[in-house]
Amino acid sequence: MRKLDIPAIQHIATGAALMGAGGGGNPFIGKLMAISAVRQFGPVTLLDPSEVPDDAVVSSPSGIGAPAVTLEKFPNGSEFKLAMKKLEDLLGKPITAVFPIEAGGINSMMPLVVGAQMHLPVVDADGMGRAFPELQMSTLVLAGHKICPIVMADEKGNSVIINTDDPHDAEKFARAITVQMGATAQSASDTTTGKALREDGVTGIMTLCEKIGTLLSAVSQYPTVADALQDLLQVTHGYHMMTAKITDIRHVTKGGFNFGTVIFNGLDEDQGHTGQLEFQNENIVFKREDTVLATAPDIIALVDTETLMPVTNEMLHYGKRVFVLGIPCNPKWRTPAGIKSVGPRYFKYDLDYEPVEDRVKAFRSQTVEAVK
Amino acid sequence: MRKLDIPAIQHIATGAALMGAGGGGNPFIGKLMAISAVRQFGPVTLLDPSEVPDDAVVSSPSGIGAPAVTLEKFPNGSEFKLAMKKLEDLLGKPITAVFPIEAGGINSMMPLVVGAQMHLPVVDADGMGRAFPELQMSTLVLAGHKICPIVMADEKGNSVIINTDDPHDAEKFARAITVQMGATAQSASDTTTGKALREDGVTGIMTLCEKIGTLLSAVSQYPTVADALQDLLQVTHGYHMMTAKITDIRHVTKGGFNFGTVIFNGLDEDQGHTGQLEFQNENIVFKREDTVLATAPDIIALVDTETLMPVTNEMLHYGKRVFVLGIPCNPKWRTPAGIKSVGPRYFKYDLDYEPVEDRVKAFRSQTVEAVK
Repeated sequence: MRKLDIPAIQHIATGAALMGAGGGGNPFIGKLMAISAVRQFGPVTLLDPSEVPDDAVVSSPSGIGAPAVTLEKFPNGSEFKLAMKKLEDLLGKPITAVFPIEAGGINSMMPLVVGAQMHLPVVDADGMGRAFPELQMSTLVLAGHKICPIVMADEKGNSVIINTDDPHDAEKFARAITVQMGATAQSASDTTTGKALREDGVTGIMTLCEKIGTLLSAVSQYPTVADALQDLLQVTHGYHMMTAKITDIRHVTKGGFNFGTVIFNGLDEDQGHTGQLEFQNENIVFKREDTVLATAPDIIALVDTETLMPVTNEMLHYGKRVFVLGIPCNPKWRTPAGIKSVGPRYFKYDLDYEPVEDRVKAFRSQTVEAVK
Repeated sequence: MRKLDIPAIQHIATGAALMGAGGGGNPFIGKLMAISAVRQFGPVTLLDPSEVPDDAVVSSPSGIGAPAVTLEKFPNGSEFKLAMKKLEDLLGKPITAVFPIEAGGINSMMPLVVGAQMHLPVVDADGMGRAFPELQMSTLVLAGHKICPIVMADEKGNSVIINTDDPHDAEKFARAITVQMGATAQSASDTTTGKALREDGVTGIMTLCEKIGTLLSAVSQYPTVADALQDLLQVTHGYHMMTAKITDIRHVTKGGFNFGTVIFNGLDEDQGHTGQLEFQNENIVFKREDTVLATAPDIIALVDTETLMPVTNEMLHYGKRVFVLGIPCNPKWRTPAGIKSVGPRYFKYDLDYEPVEDRVKAFRSQTVEAVK
């Protein structure tokens, strides 16, 4: 158990923007909301999952919708209070702690906002170990836990309660309401027990994000950016897949999602090569020429070549220079059910999932062969 | 207070199909459901509005969605039990009576289904005195009563609860969920008091529908169909606007609504004339050549030229011979707020509302002029 101060929140937001795989929303907005809540209501307690009683009632407050829209439609803070209150009424008992459903720029911060506002501790565990675009894409759902009841709320004081045992129906209903609420909405969902979250969530994610954020805040103190990148890869167990400049972006917002393709031209040691990234809120597939180097559920993250700061998808622009990183996902996702739920075929790519470490190693050994 | 037997239910369904202004869904389906419920659970009590205690808790069970789809996706009966149970849980008290939100083929029958299933009386009042396509289009909403909470349920046991003070938001949210539930869903909503329903609803609508249905069941006993039509016009205070054959129908289902245009060629005394009807679930505008003869909120109804049976919009087909009738709406709709809510401009027609009786009289006097 420890108190999160404002620098810790800043670091968590930065780290979550990286682990968010390009999605999860703008890290600055989430961070500003969390910092403002902590300034107003006092610091938030982070609980190690081992400290949460087995029978604790834990729920996840989160934003739903197209992250690009959150830039223009900022939650006013009352949405979560309404959603949490309605959820407690439904449960007939108080919620004892909150947790982030995903590690992403916005949703890693929402439990901190609610934790500060409602004086509830936040558990150091999430339901993805990264960000994903749909509600049913969580290790909690994978383990058989329910998303519902979901309480959704908007800035006008409207609320909608969704009850279904089918996680895909839950996602469909929530998405339809999100669109009607103006493309973003706030929610409280995924109520479970302390024991279930500890066993079926991704534990330690907030601490990992904080560690990443702390490292990235100190990049300028490294002798070279390459040294800092090495440390980042070590902390995340990640791979550097390409150094590149963005040369094209196709991007649409459709049905509450951001869809897009990013085209890269290689720089430095990757000069003369091209890369392509497909995203659906989050980054899903990255390839160099025709070789796929990483797919969901592994994490494809872009970072700035000078600062190593994560580049989320609403920050993409022509000419941006990035390192493209591949980070292994939590092993809970690497089961047949996990791959079915969030692997490339779910996102309509005709590709089998292979772990990013295998893909990158195979690519590197081929490249060495070719050079010989 | 009286018991409704199966013939009474059949007559109400027929009358409601006429008052439903082309919309409100297929009368046979609603009738079959109500009759089957009464056979299984016993007859339903119809309460005169004066018999309902002032503080009675009254709610309306109704179907939402594109009526055309109900033909293929028949409610299984469990949806209303779920919706009513959830609504009672939310209210924290039992519902003491139900009422139809609209007079239409399906929604005039749903309270009878629920009344039989749950042994609740049905109040002889609705919220429209006809059918309309959107939830906020009720004289109850016009008088300031709330639609929410709305509990929606589908055949899979899914439920969604909508809470908003904005009737247009309620409609938007319910429509979005209806689409996700497969284009039709069942709901319980518009909870109010006995006093409010008596004062702000359209009272006597079930009895009027029954009277119309009884008359239409006896058409073959009249010397001529014209005699029966005269009686029908008298009972409904309606006007015969055209005798015609359907020569074209354009029809789409979009976002949970049926939209369409029907083209008529005149028959008999209207030979040589053309007519055009625009509908959005319900009939909204009818004109002969370029002269508008009726618009919402007045009721435009088609009836078969041989049987006088109402022809609802999913029963339209090329070659069908009909009388086009115009029936004055309940006076509650004829206020500036009522016209704004359900007049032709709301449905995007560049027309001012004028009472059907004024339009028809003006047209007839012009025609007489022209003949002179």
